[in-house]
Amino acid sequence: MTNTLVLLRHGESEWNALNLFTGWVDVHLTDKGVAEGKRAGELLAEHGILPDIVYTSLLRRAISTANIALDAADRHWIPVVRDWRLNERHYGALQGKNKAQIRDEYGEDQFMLWRRSYDTPPPPIELDDEYSQADDPRYADTEVPRTECLLDVVNRMVPYWESTISRELRGGKTVLVAAHGNSLRALVKHLDGISDEDIAGLNIPTGIPLRYELDDDLRPVRPREYLDPEAAAAGAAAVASQGGR
Amino acid sequence: MTNTLVLLRHGESEWNALNLFTGWVDVHLTDKGVAEGKRAGELLAEHGILPDIVYTSLLRRAISTANIALDAADRHWIPVVRDWRLNERHYGALQGKNKAQIRDEYGEDQFMLWRRSYDTPPPPIELDDEYSQADDPRYADTEVPRTECLLDVVNRMVPYWESTISRELRGGKTVLVAAHGNSLRALVKHLDGISDEDIAGLNIPTGIPLRYELDDDLRPVRPREYLDPEAAAAGAAAVASQGGR
Repeated sequence: MTNTLVLLRHGESEWNALNLFTGWVDVHLTDKGVAEGKRAGELLAEHGILPDIVYTSLLRRAISTANIALDAADRHWIPVVRDWRLNERHYGALQGKNKAQIRDEYGEDQFMLWRRSYDTPPPPIELDDEYSQADDPRYADTEVPRTECLLDVVNRMVPYWESTISRELRGGKTVLVAAHGNSLRALVKHLDGISDEDIAGLNIPTGIPLRYELDDDLRPVRPREYLDPEAAAAGAAAVASQGGR
Repeated sequence: MTNTLVLLRHGESEWNALNLFTGWVDVHLTDKGVAEGKRAGELLAEHGILPDIVYTSLLRRAISTANIALDAADRHWIPVVRDWRLNERHYGALQGKNKAQIRDEYGEDQFMLWRRSYDTPPPPIELDDEYSQADDPRYADTEVPRTECLLDVVNRMVPYWESTISRELRGGKTVLVAAHGNSLRALVKHLDGISDEDIAGLNIPTGIPLRYELDDDLRPVRPREYLDPEAAAAGAAAVASQGGR
């Protein structure tokens, strides 16, 4: 018996479609994103993967994707746990900015550094910026970051994985984690032991369930696998090319 | 400071629209039901009622209504707790049957007895009935009833209220309970001390938040109140007349 973990990046959001840096800004899914969530649930059902519990971030695009997918998979009734540690990377002062404009303004090198450097965060957001979450009631008990690099996400995500999610998995449950490009990259990096350098090349497409089978030490017993590999390859290429026109 | 409790019966379901006894059968919302859920969330926001936690049954129509309402109220991110004790009354062998047909076949008196008697359940459902939940995985750890009267619902709902929901309320949280006509009637009966006889005349409309302000002993400090009283009166009258043609 192995333990089944499924990671699901939210479907396309309004700001994915507009090519804006989103981070902790709480945008809605597009119609395409809703359809991706439904398809994700159908893929779970087709593969006989029946989540026993779902973890989500505190952001609408992940919460809605989980709701839609679980409804389509007839698992809408399972327990739900939400935590800010699953949130997208905080994009600092870039939140709300157009990716192509930032690339043009700062150049390709700086742009890719902010997007994919492991340990260089973008400039911090001002507390009174319209896209700051400093006063958001959902983070009343949380020290809201003003910017994050992927290392910062690893440093909040992995302890949560260790203390909480992994316990459910070891208890024999099938676990769904509905989250974001960078919080899931942080977890994939941890699970597959990907180096700080190589993680830059890993892109997670929206809306396609990514399955792990883990032993009781939570080591993968076979390579991670998208439930729709063709769509995943196309989706990952699309993520990699963001910032283009 | 009082404690705010909001009860929300799910929006119109496919079987409400078809005039069928539903009980534990897990039907979808209609488009009207979806719109009711959205309106419920808008009413919460307009009244400045910000739920800190939501309780739902294990049935899709209550879960979807909660998801839709909380999204509309910008409270989609709050903690969620689901429990079968909030489920609709199990309607026994009547599940899946047309209300008007049952009234014609058994007569008005028997029909109303099954619908509104406090302590007379309908005949039990057969375990192999297509509308039985005997093998439903969501109840794997639960002794699934084969029929219930309102007294049975009180006997499962009130202990859950006492042990779980009321603790969050006493802790100062604003609590939303998204459930069903009869599980909410059971709770209203308990909160307002309604007699076994008088509860027969109480009908809860779909999709309109019902607000209680409770003191620290969880006694109402003023009468319960629908956030849209006019729509609630019309909705309650519609529930009362079900079974008509």
